[in-house]
Amino acid sequence: MLTRNPHLARLKSRYLFSEIGRRRREFADAHPGVRVISLGIGDTTEPLVAPIVAAVRERAAAMGTREGYAGYGDEQGLTALRQKIAEVVYRGQVAPEEVFVSDGCKCDIGRLQLLFGPAAHLAVQDPSYPAYVDSAVITGMTGDLIEARGQFAGITYLPCHADNGFFPVLEAIPHRSLVYFCSPNNPTGAVATRAQLTQLVTAVRERRGVLVFDAAYSAFIRDEGLPRSIYEIPGAREVAIETSSFSKPAGFTGVRLGWTVVPRDLRYEDGAAVHDDFNRIVTTVFNGASVFAQAAGLAALGPDGLAATRRQIDHYMGNARLIRETLEQAGFKVFGGVNAPYLWARIPGKTSWEAFDELLYQAHVVATPGSGFGPAGEGYLRFSAFAHREDVEEAIGRLRRVFAKPGS
Amino acid sequence: MLTRNPHLARLKSRYLFSEIGRRRREFADAHPGVRVISLGIGDTTEPLVAPIVAAVRERAAAMGTREGYAGYGDEQGLTALRQKIAEVVYRGQVAPEEVFVSDGCKCDIGRLQLLFGPAAHLAVQDPSYPAYVDSAVITGMTGDLIEARGQFAGITYLPCHADNGFFPVLEAIPHRSLVYFCSPNNPTGAVATRAQLTQLVTAVRERRGVLVFDAAYSAFIRDEGLPRSIYEIPGAREVAIETSSFSKPAGFTGVRLGWTVVPRDLRYEDGAAVHDDFNRIVTTVFNGASVFAQAAGLAALGPDGLAATRRQIDHYMGNARLIRETLEQAGFKVFGGVNAPYLWARIPGKTSWEAFDELLYQAHVVATPGSGFGPAGEGYLRFSAFAHREDVEEAIGRLRRVFAKPGS
Repeated sequence: MLTRNPHLARLKSRYLFSEIGRRRREFADAHPGVRVISLGIGDTTEPLVAPIVAAVRERAAAMGTREGYAGYGDEQGLTALRQKIAEVVYRGQVAPEEVFVSDGCKCDIGRLQLLFGPAAHLAVQDPSYPAYVDSAVITGMTGDLIEARGQFAGITYLPCHADNGFFPVLEAIPHRSLVYFCSPNNPTGAVATRAQLTQLVTAVRERRGVLVFDAAYSAFIRDEGLPRSIYEIPGAREVAIETSSFSKPAGFTGVRLGWTVVPRDLRYEDGAAVHDDFNRIVTTVFNGASVFAQAAGLAALGPDGLAATRRQIDHYMGNARLIRETLEQAGFKVFGGVNAPYLWARIPGKTSWEAFDELLYQAHVVATPGSGFGPAGEGYLRFSAFAHREDVEEAIGRLRRVFAKPGS
Repeated sequence: MLTRNPHLARLKSRYLFSEIGRRRREFADAHPGVRVISLGIGDTTEPLVAPIVAAVRERAAAMGTREGYAGYGDEQGLTALRQKIAEVVYRGQVAPEEVFVSDGCKCDIGRLQLLFGPAAHLAVQDPSYPAYVDSAVITGMTGDLIEARGQFAGITYLPCHADNGFFPVLEAIPHRSLVYFCSPNNPTGAVATRAQLTQLVTAVRERRGVLVFDAAYSAFIRDEGLPRSIYEIPGAREVAIETSSFSKPAGFTGVRLGWTVVPRDLRYEDGAAVHDDFNRIVTTVFNGASVFAQAAGLAALGPDGLAATRRQIDHYMGNARLIRETLEQAGFKVFGGVNAPYLWARIPGKTSWEAFDELLYQAHVVATPGSGFGPAGEGYLRFSAFAHREDVEEAIGRLRRVFAKPGS
């Protein structure tokens, strides 16, 4: 028999959300009839808005006709959708042909890892979305797991914590790194300012690296002064790839639609365009997003779709405000939840998993252990605003009871 | 700036179908108003059948309701769909949890390459579907391109030609190879017999290799004696992965839905289950097929869906018969097209691209140059049966005129 890919063998055996699921099932088995409310995984809960439903139904009907049927499309996505993303999301700051439509950020991250090969050095925020590191491990960009630290050799982790305002010390970024940076941040809910992103772009450029900017939560930014795309920063086109998604702003977590922007100005050391290689990767190991998902995406970016999804985002941000107020009233230090759908709460004197279990067993509420996103997340819980309103209300009622301050 | 993944740099600069597109555009620019008929790329042309359209429309409506909305599903696919595939396609020969639902074979092939790592030795049929080799090149499993041969160092090419009945000499498979094998074959249309597949499974097992069996065209098999799945062969569960698709049998090339079976019995050298690693890859760099595509797949495997798609396959196989008769009457030696939607025609005295250009410029018909699938395809053209009937009739009329034998 063949041997196992040695890179795969390095992966930790259990993924964060699987472990949460396991603990939930264990609790449910021991406490039948108790209703657990999840403010854990960042999965959308509100139905697709009417203009999107109508568009998919129309596209489905058309696919049943000779005139409307479509087989293989361009792997990079429908021209109309690439144009719409360039125009509506980027206001012309990127060209349509720089937009690669995909079946989601997570899948694109796996494909992006192939661009620079096993020799590239990875730098990630700590805490961060686990897929950046896990997909890099699979493609051989890292060393072994250092069990004691819960980190992989060969990766530079950039701690983001309350003391540095969740923005890393940029001097720690090694030369020639592939730097993953997420803003609004999953999990901390922090949003980098224009000044910070300008520093980041400068730092990556000076170090002759490449930045992968994860903008999957940009639609949740309310403060008009905060950048929603890395391409609002001068010079970013020469150093940054941006990956983003319809998942959270339009509820497409099951629909599967995202995109990645690779500007023509981004070059390898030898002057070749990274764009050309990403195009080659996409055409070789991908075959385009579903025609139904792309129809849904076009509708989401139309005037009716934008208005309706904006109301849905308002709903989630209303949830975020309620959760934030409750946690603050309970005496916790809370970050995020203002321009991001995630709240990052410091739980003093407990590990993240201890806090997770306490919340599950006392309040029957699920949050995500911060340590699952990296060592700097230890002692935090991530709360997600993706929930039905009555569930949030029920959850915060339970939280208030459990965390009621003595004497209050 | 970062350096380019050295593996990517090895890829040939242009993909087969892009080059066909380029030559078509060149022809169209020089001959405005001339209608070109494509029997080239294997892309379905007939509309989705009614039960599938209805299912997608229903799922879309449900996604607009609180009760019917679904966010992230299991990365491996809906349980109901995995069960349906195991039951309908495999008649219980595989377990539902061995079925990984995906957005298509091509994408799965990219993910499969990660299982065994860069050190695995690749063996492929020559000719073969280019994605096997190209995705292996990207993941570093090969050496450099040997320009003179049009082949990559580090890959064993197994010639399949008329003299060996398009079934390779199995003794040429090196020990510990990852062997890609496609039946019904793209591009040759050859279908391996039960005896041949038994020999193949034995050969791969004896060499302690792993077989990736591409069954994307199995629904086109009409001869009841021919195996439709590698798991019909005793012992295959211990050596073979099977990848397959709804693309061709149900017209899902734009819908995007396929699957890969990784049996629990398939083990690495160290005894670990390959299944567990594929599960880890799928959960790390994939996020499930679109909820709409999966609804479509469930409908395709229901009784109405099966009956309707079977009629569609009959239609395509009727096309295959017409094309085959025409090419044979024109004096060409033709293979395939009986249990496969592809026909493989030997064009004497010409290279594949010469024959392609001649067909394009004289008959205004596009076929696919056989050499694009590997050196052993040189001198052949692949004709695809995926077309509207009147286009096939028009195309064969043109072929008859162009290839009319003098005096006939």
